[in-house]
Amino acid sequence: MHLLKLSDPREEDVERLLDWVRARGEVRKRVDMPGECAIVFECDPGFEDPPPPPFPAGRVEILEVGTPYVLAARAAREARSRVPIRGELVVGGSEFVVMAGPCAVESKERVVRIAVAVRRLGARVLRGGAFKPRTSPYSFQGLKMEGLRRLGHAGRKSGLPVVSEVLAPEMVEAVASRVDVLQVGMRNGLNYPLLEAIGRHPARPPVLLKRGIGCGLDEFLCAADYILAGGNPNVMLCLRGNTGFSKYSRATLDLADIPLLRRMTHLPIIVDPSHAAGRRDIIPSMAAAALVAGADGLLVEVHDRPEEALVDGPQALTLEAFGGLMRRLRALAPAMDREVAGEDLEGPSRGAFADLGLEAPPLRPSRFRTA
Amino acid sequence: MHLLKLSDPREEDVERLLDWVRARGEVRKRVDMPGECAIVFECDPGFEDPPPPPFPAGRVEILEVGTPYVLAARAAREARSRVPIRGELVVGGSEFVVMAGPCAVESKERVVRIAVAVRRLGARVLRGGAFKPRTSPYSFQGLKMEGLRRLGHAGRKSGLPVVSEVLAPEMVEAVASRVDVLQVGMRNGLNYPLLEAIGRHPARPPVLLKRGIGCGLDEFLCAADYILAGGNPNVMLCLRGNTGFSKYSRATLDLADIPLLRRMTHLPIIVDPSHAAGRRDIIPSMAAAALVAGADGLLVEVHDRPEEALVDGPQALTLEAFGGLMRRLRALAPAMDREVAGEDLEGPSRGAFADLGLEAPPLRPSRFRTA
Amino acid sequence: MHLLKLSDPREEDVERLLDWVRARGEVRKRVDMPGECAIVFECDPGFEDPPPPPFPAGRVEILEVGTPYVLAARAAREARSRVPIRGELVVGGSEFVVMAGPCAVESKERVVRIAVAVRRLGARVLRGGAFKPRTSPYSFQGLKMEGLRRLGHAGRKSGLPVVSEVLAPEMVEAVASRVDVLQVGMRNGLNYPLLEAIGRHPARPPVLLKRGIGCGLDEFLCAADYILAGGNPNVMLCLRGNTGFSKYSRATLDLADIPLLRRMTHLPIIVDPSHAAGRRDIIPSMAAAALVAGADGLLVEVHDRPEEALVDGPQALTLEAFGGLMRRLRALAPAMDREVAGEDLEGPSRGAFADLGLEAPPLRPSRFRTA
Amino acid sequence: MHLLKLSDPREEDVERLLDWVRARGEVRKRVDMPGECAIVFECDPGFEDPPPPPFPAGRVEILEVGTPYVLAARAAREARSRVPIRGELVVGGSEFVVMAGPCAVESKERVVRIAVAVRRLGARVLRGGAFKPRTSPYSFQGLKMEGLRRLGHAGRKSGLPVVSEVLAPEMVEAVASRVDVLQVGMRNGLNYPLLEAIGRHPARPPVLLKRGIGCGLDEFLCAADYILAGGNPNVMLCLRGNTGFSKYSRATLDLADIPLLRRMTHLPIIVDPSHAAGRRDIIPSMAAAALVAGADGLLVEVHDRPEEALVDGPQALTLEAFGGLMRRLRALAPAMDREVAGEDLEGPSRGAFADLGLEAPPLRPSRFRTA
Repeated sequence: MHLLKLSDPREEDVERLLDWVRARGEVRKRVDMPGECAIVFECDPGFEDPPPPPFPAGRVEILEVGTPYVLAARAAREARSRVPIRGELVVGGSEFVVMAGPCAVESKERVVRIAVAVRRLGARVLRGGAFKPRTSPYSFQGLKMEGLRRLGHAGRKSGLPVVSEVLAPEMVEAVASRVDVLQVGMRNGLNYPLLEAIGRHPARPPVLLKRGIGCGLDEFLCAADYILAGGNPNVMLCLRGNTGFSKYSRATLDLADIPLLRRMTHLPIIVDPSHAAGRRDIIPSMAAAALVAGADGLLVEVHDRPEEALVDGPQALTLEAFGGLMRRLRALAPAMDREVAGEDLEGPSRGAFADLGLEAPPLRPSRFRTA
Repeated sequence: MHLLKLSDPREEDVERLLDWVRARGEVRKRVDMPGECAIVFECDPGFEDPPPPPFPAGRVEILEVGTPYVLAARAAREARSRVPIRGELVVGGSEFVVMAGPCAVESKERVVRIAVAVRRLGARVLRGGAFKPRTSPYSFQGLKMEGLRRLGHAGRKSGLPVVSEVLAPEMVEAVASRVDVLQVGMRNGLNYPLLEAIGRHPARPPVLLKRGIGCGLDEFLCAADYILAGGNPNVMLCLRGNTGFSKYSRATLDLADIPLLRRMTHLPIIVDPSHAAGRRDIIPSMAAAALVAGADGLLVEVHDRPEEALVDGPQALTLEAFGGLMRRLRALAPAMDREVAGEDLEGPSRGAFADLGLEAPPLRPSRFRTA
Repeated sequence: MHLLKLSDPREEDVERLLDWVRARGEVRKRVDMPGECAIVFECDPGFEDPPPPPFPAGRVEILEVGTPYVLAARAAREARSRVPIRGELVVGGSEFVVMAGPCAVESKERVVRIAVAVRRLGARVLRGGAFKPRTSPYSFQGLKMEGLRRLGHAGRKSGLPVVSEVLAPEMVEAVASRVDVLQVGMRNGLNYPLLEAIGRHPARPPVLLKRGIGCGLDEFLCAADYILAGGNPNVMLCLRGNTGFSKYSRATLDLADIPLLRRMTHLPIIVDPSHAAGRRDIIPSMAAAALVAGADGLLVEVHDRPEEALVDGPQALTLEAFGGLMRRLRALAPAMDREVAGEDLEGPSRGAFADLGLEAPPLRPSRFRTA
Repeated sequence: MHLLKLSDPREEDVERLLDWVRARGEVRKRVDMPGECAIVFECDPGFEDPPPPPFPAGRVEILEVGTPYVLAARAAREARSRVPIRGELVVGGSEFVVMAGPCAVESKERVVRIAVAVRRLGARVLRGGAFKPRTSPYSFQGLKMEGLRRLGHAGRKSGLPVVSEVLAPEMVEAVASRVDVLQVGMRNGLNYPLLEAIGRHPARPPVLLKRGIGCGLDEFLCAADYILAGGNPNVMLCLRGNTGFSKYSRATLDLADIPLLRRMTHLPIIVDPSHAAGRRDIIPSMAAAALVAGADGLLVEVHDRPEEALVDGPQALTLEAFGGLMRRLRALAPAMDREVAGEDLEGPSRGAFADLGLEAPPLRPSRFRTA
């Protein structure tokens, strides 16, 4: 497969390029991204080694990509991708970004309390499930739209951007308008109509794409291409463990996938040690190992009272354990040339904030550069 | 969890029963099936061993089910389920039902030619992919609605019912109106919004539910419950192999799952050896072994010219190999007290049928009872 | 790698051939088998396509083998191998050979009782563990030499050849002198010093080589080559399940390995469904499926009172279940062009035999040809 | 199972204790370790909660252990075990110990060159295979005894203790007399006669026990108990990856096993990232992650010219990459309260040492305490 990239595209240039390509092979996809148009195509026999077209001068590049995924491939971009979240932070830069919060959104007070607490300890994004796909249809399925409202409220109170899962194509718009990052869960990791619907959302929201369980790295990156090919470049990959044979943890989180993915793709890599482990005691070790193996951030479940959690309590870190994990990460980060947000004790808990009745101040300009 | 079953339900009885249940616990789901209403509920402490309510006399049963899946559980039904297809055949009875056809629907002529040929060799359902979820977004994705039309045409020509995959909740109606059996693929095996949309389709179409890759038997049966809980009892389970470590086949098809499932559930079990193997040479052995291990039928890919197949040619059986497989199945079936449809050489190829210009005669009353 | 085969070898011919080979490459192994000498060698650059040497006329063949295993490779022999056991039966011919008995040898009376019973039901070899490698060093480790004596006694009483496990190189001689078939267990599937010691035993005893757990088919066949390369051609491969992720059975027995192995090797294939399943209820289904998938025989655990078994009771078939399995196998065998030994009710239980005080009559000439 | 521990045992006390135990249950194993005698026993019904015997006063402890492994269990010892190597270093203390060297011992000069180089970069033990179990019997099987001699020579030249593999019970003495640490490879991870032979070696040599492929953590710890039960407490566990489904690395190294093992056992944990990865590019990431996840050391393959390596060249680190890894480890260690040996540039390369003709000076007293 070949990839033609045109920067600062004008429509007439794109049309000419499409014609040029069609004379040499078959266009598989035209991808319009901000400031760039990409054409994925397959060459006809005899044209396998095409030079860049002579027009528009200097703004076109042609790459051969030897993998079934194209836009996600390392070969498709010189630099690693940086995914901005709400203009305030960047995933894939020097900051190691920690996303934390409860598995499921519960009471309004509890989610605010957790949000404020994790921000004070160094989290940069608030996670919380509103639409919860559960193994059994008779289990609690999340608070749905009300859950999204409470999550958004807690995000505003704590000043943190929020991430939550979307389950079906027809829900993309509703969820995207209420969260800062769309999450695709492992059950939908190969749900292509959902990925396509996200890919063509005009706002190009950041997407946290979990690896489908039982799915290989190639398939995972192809899944990312289903989003990227819609024109949304803001994809973060999330590893959450895979089918394994360990009987002591819920899934096998193969950390070798981190350095492997860094060779295969330019997309940022987030690790979710909570679902992989299924038990809180080994999560800090795996989280720290993920940083050291080259991940760009974490998605981790934290609860103020795990024993009361409606979903997955055994894998939720207490606030105290989360604080300990953040300190460990901050101690390790310099050796990896990474930064981890510091404690922010004066921040969102100040004054009227404590009574949960006021908006928190906006996230302060971070003391570390993130872009 | 408990299951209350009321036969020949009248709405007033159901309402009284719901009240009776609410006084003892929490209703998780009311399920209206033809001729039966089921209530799944969780008892409050102190009510864990409820006797059946005294009304309406003799028509109510209460069962305790110790698994996260309830309606699919063996305990929920005395007899194994039989899924009727178009009033002509039954899956889950004494017939071992073979569903065959190309991986993807291709030209109109080809799909009719394959349909007629597989019917003549003993197939009872025609398979063919129209919406093809492909690993790479740049691969052929099927002929979509045109594919469904061609498949339906071939079904009419050959007299065979047809099965094809549906990918998203919003497509359920369109696909269900054009096929006899809805297929859920392994990528959507845990796509609950899709399963729910199928479950609540008023026509209660037969569903072939493939096991999600990397998913355990419990999760698989819970996925079935997502459909059953909508009131559609016509679910067939389909095994197609799972993540494994064999480097010589595409997936690991653990045939022990067949006798295990027969102990866990009353639903019929279909085996797809084609996707598990990924190579045609070992498919007949696995197909025959599936019959002997207790499966109720097969889903198998057949192509008249596998080397020209647009998708998955290496795993398509030739017509000759398919004929050989059918003979092997017929030779083995009596030892298993099963029946396999015979060759039907006078059937759909007769007369004007050969020129593909006429409708085939309806499928003759089978010489073996299927219900 | 290349394989040179010389039939009816004289030492002077072998020496000349070795010289001829050394002039063209490197000898990796000389293998002296009954009636044949084989030389495994690697060609130097420029000699990769050697013609057979011109001497000794007509008795030399050169084959190129593209796999890391050579002697076990399908390419190395025209016909499938037949392994004779005590001159009375053959594994790898048309007979499907059932080996049955207790997991561990227990009391003298019990092992005779089981031996006689399984013979009467159709078993052809008696299994029984004397040296039992157990996961925990504190568990019962078998009766060791006394166990071998009791097994041999039961073999003589029932007229059945016996198979038992050998654990270490220094025990090969002692075990080989007391059993008809040496078994290598899955824990020793890659224990090369043990395999080599067995391979060079001058009596060339039949060997039942279990696949090491977690080991691929290539590694399994290479392990067979470690025995074959010592000059012992009587190797039977035994599949007993592998690491998997099923939580309902002990191991995953991938029956696709049977047709795959039949393409990769000429060695006979035995299936042990007992250890794979770890539970008796699914064993008959898996055993029957193994026959249909192309296996040459079974190794199955049977106990007269499984609830009293010292080792692995939950996976032992009762005598009644074993009888039912044998009937199922006999019903299926003709469709596979295989034979399964019939019930032998007049045989070893007659007369004084019942009181366990007399030798059983020798195994009668089988009513089915086995070679 | 119960464990009775007597410190500073006198034989008469042990005899009395054995009698005391026999009156209450069944002795499974008596284990004589330096300064301690342990009795593993199973209680008869009615004695399950035995108090410590009243004699010899104050020196006896009784513990209940709920796992199939007993001596390796966390419950069996208050502190984590420390395994001394040649009185010079300790594994399981605060030092993170790096063992490095070539996969197989090759020429005398090369192994000295690598040994000196890895010592100068911070390695503390020299690894090198002499008896090489290879998948194919036709591959290079190591230099055997000559390899051990060369390894010992390089150990003396560089001042490093050496570790090498032993394959069979009858070789234990010969290997133990030539190396400082005995290695059991993954193929022999469940070879109990070998483990027992090592366990009863009177010198109680340090043992590096690799986890058998496809074997669970319980089985792994039971394998350790086979050595410990012989009276040798100096066992180090080595993780080297397991059967997985990644097609990009040779095995799946589940780092969650490190924190899991730290909860299950008191034995030190070494990680071998080289065999797990099978490719050098991802080894440094995995090695660093192992430190952070809680391992006590590494076993890593290093070669001065990997492209010339006789075995496993693709997974050997170059000296330069090894130096980079050591620097990374030293940068991370303080955050984990661990120490990693520094560069030792004045050490073994000094003076006549460079010409490889003289003995290196003994390993200097380490600047960090190791016991």
